Amino acid sequence: MTTAPCDLPPEGRLRAQIEALTPQVDGGRFAVKRLVGEALVVEADCFTDGHDAIRVLLCWRAGAHAAAGDHDGWQTVPMTPLGNDRWRGTLCVGAIGRWSYSVTAWVDDFLSWRGELVRRTDAADIRSAVVAGAALVEATAGRAPAGLADSARERLLNWARRLREQSSNGTTADAKALALNEELAELVAGCPDRRFAAFHPPLPLDVERVRAGFGAWYEMFPRSAGTSAAHGNFADCIARLPAIAAMGFDVLYLPPIHPVGSERRKGLNGGLLAGPDDVGSPWAIGAGAGGHLAIHPQLGSAGDFRELVACAAEHDIEIALDIAFQCAPDHPWVTEHPDWFRRRPDGSVQYAENPPKKYQDIYPFDFATDDWRALWQALAGIFRHWIGEGVRIFRVDNPHTKAFPFWEWVIASIRSEHPETIFLAEAFTRPRIMHRLAKLGFSQSYTYFTWRNTKAELSTYFEELAHGPEREYFRPNVWPNTPDILPEYLQMGGRPAFIVRLALAATLAANYGIYGPAFELMDDQPREPGSEEYLDSEKYQLRRWSRNSPDSLSGLIGRFNRIRRDNSALHSNHSLAFLAVDNEQLIAYTKRSDDGANVIVVVVNLDPHNAHSGWLELDLSVIGVAAGTSFQMHDLLTGIRYLWSDARNFIRLDPQHMPVHVFRVRQRLRSERDFDYFL
Amino acid sequence: MTTAPCDLPPEGRLRAQIEALTPQVDGGRFAVKRLVGEALVVEADCFTDGHDAIRVLLCWRAGAHAAAGDHDGWQTVPMTPLGNDRWRGTLCVGAIGRWSYSVTAWVDDFLSWRGELVRRTDAADIRSAVVAGAALVEATAGRAPAGLADSARERLLNWARRLREQSSNGTTADAKALALNEELAELVAGCPDRRFAAFHPPLPLDVERVRAGFGAWYEMFPRSAGTSAAHGNFADCIARLPAIAAMGFDVLYLPPIHPVGSERRKGLNGGLLAGPDDVGSPWAIGAGAGGHLAIHPQLGSAGDFRELVACAAEHDIEIALDIAFQCAPDHPWVTEHPDWFRRRPDGSVQYAENPPKKYQDIYPFDFATDDWRALWQALAGIFRHWIGEGVRIFRVDNPHTKAFPFWEWVIASIRSEHPETIFLAEAFTRPRIMHRLAKLGFSQSYTYFTWRNTKAELSTYFEELAHGPEREYFRPNVWPNTPDILPEYLQMGGRPAFIVRLALAATLAANYGIYGPAFELMDDQPREPGSEEYLDSEKYQLRRWSRNSPDSLSGLIGRFNRIRRDNSALHSNHSLAFLAVDNEQLIAYTKRSDDGANVIVVVVNLDPHNAHSGWLELDLSVIGVAAGTSFQMHDLLTGIRYLWSDARNFIRLDPQHMPVHVFRVRQRLRSERDFDYFL
Repeated sequence: MTTAPCDLPPEGRLRAQIEALTPQVDGGRFAVKRLVGEALVVEADCFTDGHDAIRVLLCWRAGAHAAAGDHDGWQTVPMTPLGNDRWRGTLCVGAIGRWSYSVTAWVDDFLSWRGELVRRTDAADIRSAVVAGAALVEATAGRAPAGLADSARERLLNWARRLREQSSNGTTADAKALALNEELAELVAGCPDRRFAAFHPPLPLDVERVRAGFGAWYEMFPRSAGTSAAHGNFADCIARLPAIAAMGFDVLYLPPIHPVGSERRKGLNGGLLAGPDDVGSPWAIGAGAGGHLAIHPQLGSAGDFRELVACAAEHDIEIALDIAFQCAPDHPWVTEHPDWFRRRPDGSVQYAENPPKKYQDIYPFDFATDDWRALWQALAGIFRHWIGEGVRIFRVDNPHTKAFPFWEWVIASIRSEHPETIFLAEAFTRPRIMHRLAKLGFSQSYTYFTWRNTKAELSTYFEELAHGPEREYFRPNVWPNTPDILPEYLQMGGRPAFIVRLALAATLAANYGIYGPAFELMDDQPREPGSEEYLDSEKYQLRRWSRNSPDSLSGLIGRFNRIRRDNSALHSNHSLAFLAVDNEQLIAYTKRSDDGANVIVVVVNLDPHNAHSGWLELDLSVIGVAAGTSFQMHDLLTGIRYLWSDARNFIRLDPQHMPVHVFRVRQRLRSERDFDYFL
Repeated sequence: MTTAPCDLPPEGRLRAQIEALTPQVDGGRFAVKRLVGEALVVEADCFTDGHDAIRVLLCWRAGAHAAAGDHDGWQTVPMTPLGNDRWRGTLCVGAIGRWSYSVTAWVDDFLSWRGELVRRTDAADIRSAVVAGAALVEATAGRAPAGLADSARERLLNWARRLREQSSNGTTADAKALALNEELAELVAGCPDRRFAAFHPPLPLDVERVRAGFGAWYEMFPRSAGTSAAHGNFADCIARLPAIAAMGFDVLYLPPIHPVGSERRKGLNGGLLAGPDDVGSPWAIGAGAGGHLAIHPQLGSAGDFRELVACAAEHDIEIALDIAFQCAPDHPWVTEHPDWFRRRPDGSVQYAENPPKKYQDIYPFDFATDDWRALWQALAGIFRHWIGEGVRIFRVDNPHTKAFPFWEWVIASIRSEHPETIFLAEAFTRPRIMHRLAKLGFSQSYTYFTWRNTKAELSTYFEELAHGPEREYFRPNVWPNTPDILPEYLQMGGRPAFIVRLALAATLAANYGIYGPAFELMDDQPREPGSEEYLDSEKYQLRRWSRNSPDSLSGLIGRFNRIRRDNSALHSNHSLAFLAVDNEQLIAYTKRSDDGANVIVVVVNLDPHNAHSGWLELDLSVIGVAAGTSFQMHDLLTGIRYLWSDARNFIRLDPQHMPVHVFRVRQRLRSERDFDYFL
């Protein structure tokens, strides 16, 4: 690995230097993430010694890291100098999967010669330089590839002849002009001498499908999907699909659908003792009927499940499954693979615990087992099984309690077979750990949004997510509620609180989700005061929901999801910019599409109890309006249009009416495309 | 290089994760630099899955990068958690040379078990846990090394027995207390199970001797060192040593001492035609008398040079040589190694040029030559030759016009043989290039200080140097003047300007230098208005200097260098902090020693023409003074003491008197060491 310092390098003429290549994650240890069709803007510091000119190319190709020395098979695009030795290039890949990208740079003798010739004034020097240029063109002709060579080589040799002629017979001015001919420069540039090109170690890029970066999720317990008091099933889910589609959701996410353990089954509200009719927690996976590959018999058959997947697809809805790598005590693997679990001194299997708390109905896997290879393969097999049943989105339960090396391996393995697979990490834990899971390959991650309520909390956090270093690998998926979390804000704020949190989730993040019907029916009852658990939680029992309640937020949810689909500004996070408002209860921000044609301005009153007003300061350059020009602010929720003509504008939001503005900025005649000014 | 994603890793149980290790330069591609005795504070994000406890060690060992898998032979020190999964450790190496450092972390079963036991409350659980702990202690005993094992192993087994006894016979409280015994924890910690330890790829660290980071340089042309009109020589230099030592310089740097080319020799003031008596530029190296290994015959013999080195050493002065890798047309290598130079179309050797400028007396080497291996070895041989003559400090001329890979190789090669060698990069060029040279191994670098005059310019630039990412590898050596640069500020400002620039150089940077006697005799005459060249530049002629002029700044220079030596706050750059003063012409800053015992406050009036006054705002926490306590500000230049007792103080500096305060902060009874309060 080490060479003695006195050993010469294999090649000492790699004079171009490349450094500070961005973006990269941990020096290339992890992949930068993009969606298919999204641009990757690459920059690097590139320079060489002395005054010579360099050429710099951005390179990319499909597949994992090629060896640094392997320079073949790369697509390239020229990078352009930004000043201060910084160069930039942009690539946009059209296929999902793992890619590699890099930068190559070399000293270009012809460009160097040309740059000097421009500055030469002495007649003899110019003539001499033109002769030197002819020699460079001849050398280039020698490199012109044999295939298409005939024409290129001939043309180059012809140029060389003309240069030599002009250097002796033409005027100095003519010789210089000929040598500086653009067509010649282009011809030579086409046959570069890259023998001594420096090549940055390739960096990994993961390109995922659009749904990895933009989608609205709806979580629902299938066993409560029915209309009667009976245990719901997949057919009930299918019956719900039109309503879910009407709300505009892209992903229907189901908690675990496997047989629920009966040993040490939890009772109502998580009580230790289950009664004979209690259905237990779907996360206590495995029983006599099977484990992670089986379906709870009361939900239906494998065929019923495939039918659900197919029907959902007809509504443009994808089914996401919950993958929880843990076992109920009667999971078949507990007896089939005793080595996959830790033991207590009395020989019993070690249940999950975080002293003094105990979770006797859950057996964690022991990732330090000597039999880790078989365990990993079995867990990977779970993903493969459900992929075989038509699932391509997995919400992974508590990934931070499983070994990190496993995630890196399993996600890479599954993606190498099915690059369209999306993994959502349900890790509500410390920031470094959440980031690490994202680096290891999770497409999306749960966030702290659930507990960020004030203007300062929200703006600080989303500023980080949109513009911090994690923007290259961490895709937030934000949830106002989950079956585990009924936040205090929703318990206290009534209907306006639900609308506020829905609006923030749907517009701050390109990926968001709600746990329903608890959300749209505004279930705000905690198990007890101070608890974030739902009273009569669906985690431990069936629930009957009054889905047709006139109070339901389903209509408003549908409106938000329609707005999201119609406005490309809301399809990504990186354009997010917060605006100044002189009221701490009013938060405002803009998002805009990359081409600037779609600009959304959101203003939210965070106080669910009182009306608030204040002065909002727009950034006219962001919304693309010249100062003094009037423009329409079209509230897409109410349909009301306001005519504004200045950066500073008055806002008043009454939570009893509607605590949110979602404005689309519409401009008169800004471009031919803006036909919708009066729509 | 690539493995298929579905291949399992060789070991899947490396559960601890290490990332964001600092400091590092370009992901470990280049070395972090420290001086011998300086601390290296290393931090990293370290964590594992779930709730288990980890242990983290900082590791280091001599030599270049060991392979990542080689975990033996490392010295270690525990790292401690700072919160948010960040860990910190400090190492301090006592020998110069190349080192490697890294971080290792692993899940510690005993610590995890112990942390859970602390929180356990259930009696049966505690007894069960104590039995589990006994098993862990027995496993630890099995790992206790055979050598010193007898006692450690026996003690561990004895502990295990006691734990088992207590678990069945003792009270729950006694059993828990015994299991949490600190001595047991220490004993187990001494025999860790590091089979599944993660190990960060080792990073390089270059430790250099103190002179690389702290020194005052004096540049002088030996040929002008005499007292008569004759060509000076090494004996004249020896005669100057007492005066240079009296000024307090550590390094005497000589422009090239080789035979000066006679072909196309430059005349007075750089004129194209040399007269018969013109001595030419010392940077036009090589003539019939020899090249880079030879000494100009009029300077003396090799023996005379060695005598100079020895006499300088007696004055605690080191000789630094100028290494300029370029040739005069009559350098012997031009005929001996025609391949090392480029040719013009007419067959003549290509001289240096930057069109339309031409330097016909200088032939650059062609680093793209096919014979680069021989060229590199020959150039390395120049360093080796002068090392053989006793030189250990090299000021390298224009390194940015030679191939970067050469510098990385030659510095590593020379350092592997003579790790005490110091290289100063004379590159006044673009920032990325200057930084790259420092990364490649140069110990010190010239800077933009020479042209930074205003408060904003100086504070911005030195803030970067002291606290930017370059602090890990770029050591500034700042010069108010050089033979190439007489800055406008010195041309215009008279004596106060020289004092201002001296004070800034000597106190802002731990390494600084002046070109004398031009500096101390305040030579301020440019070749022509608008030029930064000296009139009658020593680069092209002998100069007679009135060294005993009563106006000479030599006494003040001696005072500054004495202050530098006596105050460790001035021996490094990283403590630099600028202070607020409400006058744009007054700049103020503090420096303090790492232990806080030595605090220097400098205030400079940047206007050489007018007195200025203003209010200075001290940071009392930096100088270690409690608010309301009085303290002495002892001006080390004038000897005057001021009694201050507040952060806000009035300053007035008259350039006609003394444009600079250099205060040492002295406190009454702050510590026993402060015996010098009234000294």
